[in-house]
Amino acid sequence: MIVLGPNRYGKAETRVVRVTRHGDAHHIKDLNVSTSLSGAMADVHLTGDNSAVLTTDAQKNTVYAFARKHGIGAIEDFALLLARRFVDSQPSVHRARVAVEEYAWERNAGSGHSFLRSGREVRTCVAHYDGSAAWMVCGLRDLVVLNTTNSEFRGFVKDEYTTLPETRDRILATAVDASWRHSSVRPTGPDGDPGGDWDRGPDGNGEAANDWDKSYETVRQALLTAFAGTYSLSLQQTLYAMGARVLADCPEICEVRLSLPNKHHFLVDLAPFGLDNPNEVYLAADRPYGLIEGTVLRDDAPAAGPAWE
Amino acid sequence: MIVLGPNRYGKAETRVVRVTRHGDAHHIKDLNVSTSLSGAMADVHLTGDNSAVLTTDAQKNTVYAFARKHGIGAIEDFALLLARRFVDSQPSVHRARVAVEEYAWERNAGSGHSFLRSGREVRTCVAHYDGSAAWMVCGLRDLVVLNTTNSEFRGFVKDEYTTLPETRDRILATAVDASWRHSSVRPTGPDGDPGGDWDRGPDGNGEAANDWDKSYETVRQALLTAFAGTYSLSLQQTLYAMGARVLADCPEICEVRLSLPNKHHFLVDLAPFGLDNPNEVYLAADRPYGLIEGTVLRDDAPAAGPAWE
Amino acid sequence: MIVLGPNRYGKAETRVVRVTRHGDAHHIKDLNVSTSLSGAMADVHLTGDNSAVLTTDAQKNTVYAFARKHGIGAIEDFALLLARRFVDSQPSVHRARVAVEEYAWERNAGSGHSFLRSGREVRTCVAHYDGSAAWMVCGLRDLVVLNTTNSEFRGFVKDEYTTLPETRDRILATAVDASWRHSSVRPTGPDGDPGGDWDRGPDGNGEAANDWDKSYETVRQALLTAFAGTYSLSLQQTLYAMGARVLADCPEICEVRLSLPNKHHFLVDLAPFGLDNPNEVYLAADRPYGLIEGTVLRDDAPAAGPAWE
Amino acid sequence: MIVLGPNRYGKAETRVVRVTRHGDAHHIKDLNVSTSLSGAMADVHLTGDNSAVLTTDAQKNTVYAFARKHGIGAIEDFALLLARRFVDSQPSVHRARVAVEEYAWERNAGSGHSFLRSGREVRTCVAHYDGSAAWMVCGLRDLVVLNTTNSEFRGFVKDEYTTLPETRDRILATAVDASWRHSSVRPTGPDGDPGGDWDRGPDGNGEAANDWDKSYETVRQALLTAFAGTYSLSLQQTLYAMGARVLADCPEICEVRLSLPNKHHFLVDLAPFGLDNPNEVYLAADRPYGLIEGTVLRDDAPAAGPAWE
Repeated sequence: MIVLGPNRYGKAETRVVRVTRHGDAHHIKDLNVSTSLSGAMADVHLTGDNSAVLTTDAQKNTVYAFARKHGIGAIEDFALLLARRFVDSQPSVHRARVAVEEYAWERNAGSGHSFLRSGREVRTCVAHYDGSAAWMVCGLRDLVVLNTTNSEFRGFVKDEYTTLPETRDRILATAVDASWRHSSVRPTGPDGDPGGDWDRGPDGNGEAANDWDKSYETVRQALLTAFAGTYSLSLQQTLYAMGARVLADCPEICEVRLSLPNKHHFLVDLAPFGLDNPNEVYLAADRPYGLIEGTVLRDDAPAAGPAWE
Repeated sequence: MIVLGPNRYGKAETRVVRVTRHGDAHHIKDLNVSTSLSGAMADVHLTGDNSAVLTTDAQKNTVYAFARKHGIGAIEDFALLLARRFVDSQPSVHRARVAVEEYAWERNAGSGHSFLRSGREVRTCVAHYDGSAAWMVCGLRDLVVLNTTNSEFRGFVKDEYTTLPETRDRILATAVDASWRHSSVRPTGPDGDPGGDWDRGPDGNGEAANDWDKSYETVRQALLTAFAGTYSLSLQQTLYAMGARVLADCPEICEVRLSLPNKHHFLVDLAPFGLDNPNEVYLAADRPYGLIEGTVLRDDAPAAGPAWE
Repeated sequence: MIVLGPNRYGKAETRVVRVTRHGDAHHIKDLNVSTSLSGAMADVHLTGDNSAVLTTDAQKNTVYAFARKHGIGAIEDFALLLARRFVDSQPSVHRARVAVEEYAWERNAGSGHSFLRSGREVRTCVAHYDGSAAWMVCGLRDLVVLNTTNSEFRGFVKDEYTTLPETRDRILATAVDASWRHSSVRPTGPDGDPGGDWDRGPDGNGEAANDWDKSYETVRQALLTAFAGTYSLSLQQTLYAMGARVLADCPEICEVRLSLPNKHHFLVDLAPFGLDNPNEVYLAADRPYGLIEGTVLRDDAPAAGPAWE
Repeated sequence: MIVLGPNRYGKAETRVVRVTRHGDAHHIKDLNVSTSLSGAMADVHLTGDNSAVLTTDAQKNTVYAFARKHGIGAIEDFALLLARRFVDSQPSVHRARVAVEEYAWERNAGSGHSFLRSGREVRTCVAHYDGSAAWMVCGLRDLVVLNTTNSEFRGFVKDEYTTLPETRDRILATAVDASWRHSSVRPTGPDGDPGGDWDRGPDGNGEAANDWDKSYETVRQALLTAFAGTYSLSLQQTLYAMGARVLADCPEICEVRLSLPNKHHFLVDLAPFGLDNPNEVYLAADRPYGLIEGTVLRDDAPAAGPAWE
């Protein structure tokens, strides 16, 4: 028999820019929000009965309306606020997933109202909420880093298709795509927040709320520092060092997932032109590229539940 | 304690073009191959000991050498051949994942040696092999379809953020991203294939080998026919119809996953210009877009194992 | 002294889809329209006086309204219609440039109302109109073609940085980006067209109107046939053959411009693996790529005026 | 008669990364170089005679060899060095065009050998050289800026397709794409440079060499400051202010060309949800977008020659 399996639906890539003014000093938040709902949706698939469907258009409207009503602080809080709204207000919606990307801006020319889009990485988060519990995976992507030395690659398997020479000094470059899971989620309720009693944590125990911004900056710095400071024998080793450093520096995080393309920089052979090349001139290649993926976690990490979906 | 979790590594996006000549009639296969290996890789992460690492460069070389030695027929057979090579030849490699994309070409101007890249969708497959069993997920992406009528959207929830009007006639358009899992995998061994005894199926029972090309065309046609033929009350309903049609037409397939962006076409309000708009002029929007994701499967589908990883 | 030089402004990438119905047989046109106006615009630049500015929003609205009022036939006619509207209705607008891209669709599954986006190249045009004369450059892009043989490359300069070996048989592949200029423009006026007297040509001499669709198909076929049929000693030679064929087949066209990336396919050296490679296995490279640009024209081509701007 | 018109050929997008070491402090330059040559190339087009062709492969090799021999300082100097090499060493090459893009990196974590790719704009230059004279157009792209206030748009034409309301306070945002022409080019010859006598300027008059890096930073600051500081009545007015500021601050520059997409941020109508929206919540739109293009120049700017080709 043919049956319906897991499913979800929502509005992807709602682009919202929120301006806040403190006198002449303006602030902006620039987000890309994707919402996804699931629940009692069998009928819409099987018969086209839409009575359980909160439209994706309404989801988009909620993003804009909540940006006005509640403002936008840390993207994680905004994501949780939206996730809770959808689940708590709609009996047919049993679980919400809200993913947010944030683009960074800096001040332009010392002006209070002029901004310059920063070339920093994109900050991301994915929040899940099911009516009683919440999960949070934070992340970043497009953080491009490069070491000009302190990277070897030797001692690997030599099979009949291996021609790569060993090296004791190469460029190591990657575009960091990282996600990390928080052990627990205690969102601060904004003013008027229907879930405001989460201020004291989901178990009402008065624990402090998550400080997402501080946590993000700590992770970012851990990734950068570990990449710079690891004498690398392989990109796998560097990956593990980066993940371990995040966990060492951030007790609130229980698991880190990294996807690191090995952006190959090949030393150009200049011998045909009567030139040596003492690790000075490199060809930056596009494809193919190595791709190293790995997870670093605490052995007592709580179950992930839907966090990574 | 901090520990290493799931990990894999490989060479992504090896671009190989294979020419075959039958007199003046040439044939080409144009692929993008990504290989990923996992196994006894703890040391490389923890200490940088690379003695278990088959380099990603050797993986790339294997792709090119196997293209020469074995030719390239169906991408699924090529993916399986590579996956088996890596696992069967390297004790430290316990599982291989090989993903292939194929770009279609058609003949140009009736010539035997001139080709025109077709605008057809990209055909994909992901093969997994662990030394004893294999899994296959086939797929396609960028199959863009549009119905100018026979699509309604009514009867949905109206909450305080719902402003979308109901409609009895709209454009329905999407870019189909589909993947489907085969119930069993019995690769035909090419000449010189070390795993040639799979010719009789993994359990040696003489079952016929998979006919990947025929299966692909049947799925593609099922998706297109179901999209065209379904009077749609929602994109979810169309999604289910498409998945169910694939399963109905293809007994060898046990599960279909579809990700369907709702490529909104908004009817333009021309009333300010004294014009009506009887479903004739539409604005094709980019973002945001609806995103409908769902799975349709047989209730007795075998366990998926690593197939979807 | 600092002065204002050439300038123009407009609305880029207005996406319009137009449906036409003949009973159950529907037709769609899927366009991307960019309009650009220039004229008496000094004040807007120098003082911010907008009294000469037809807003880019109104330009967009005109695209949609004209799609309704006049329908969309050949994109060239639609571009001219818009260009004439802007110049003829606004004293401050002295020249209009309208660029259109068209995406091809084919019928899906034999249905009258279901479509499949074709992988064919993108068809383009750029129309200019200055109140009395019009110019038309048509084109296409992303027409990807490949010859598996009949391409040599020998006899080139050998300087101290030349290491490329000569070859008598290589793959030749490119993504054709072509534009061609029509010698004269005689748009057919649609019903209600204020410039309908152009039906008889700009000089009222009763010449037939341009048949843009037929011309386009003839050019496309000429490009494809010349690419397939030319035994190539260089991509430059093939470029010239393609342009010359267009001019030979299309008396209405006076100039062709081609930009042809040499999409390198490198023969993979399989000798390290004990394998030969008799022109069978190629690496399709991304960057860098050769880029061959050239113009082929009639020696009596009329002056181009603003056609290529 | 059918004839060959303007043509050129070369190697596009050669990616070169150059490392320089001063003890533990490393420096990197990360470039994308495109070279294009023209000259006595009729035969290659007409008959496939390649005896005048310096291969695009050799052009690429020259980029890498010169990066080693001469190092890479300002991209303008590197572009001129290459352009002069091609023309001065090959009788058949009469003109060279060398375009360079530079990607910015900053130091990572205080390390001397670890870098973080900066999100700054891409710096560009295009050099032309014809054997006796040189031209230089510098530029930048992807400099994304936004003002949250001090932007009006009123007093424009109202025709029958105008529905845009006037506004006294809107977001103004653009991605600056700017190019500026230097009045004269006096490249400093690097050590061993065959054109070293240009040290004293092309006319041997002992003028100081161009300081490209200083000039670039001055232009960049002028663009940013003018964008921030202009109370804008239209994006055209802002464009002119930006160009004029560059010319005012940089006597060495004679012409500025700007292409400014109006990245629309639409104020979201929240009235249906019982909310006002006092310029706080905006929808950042993708397409269509306004596109404002203009030139600001000195009235006594020298002839541009091939500079903009």
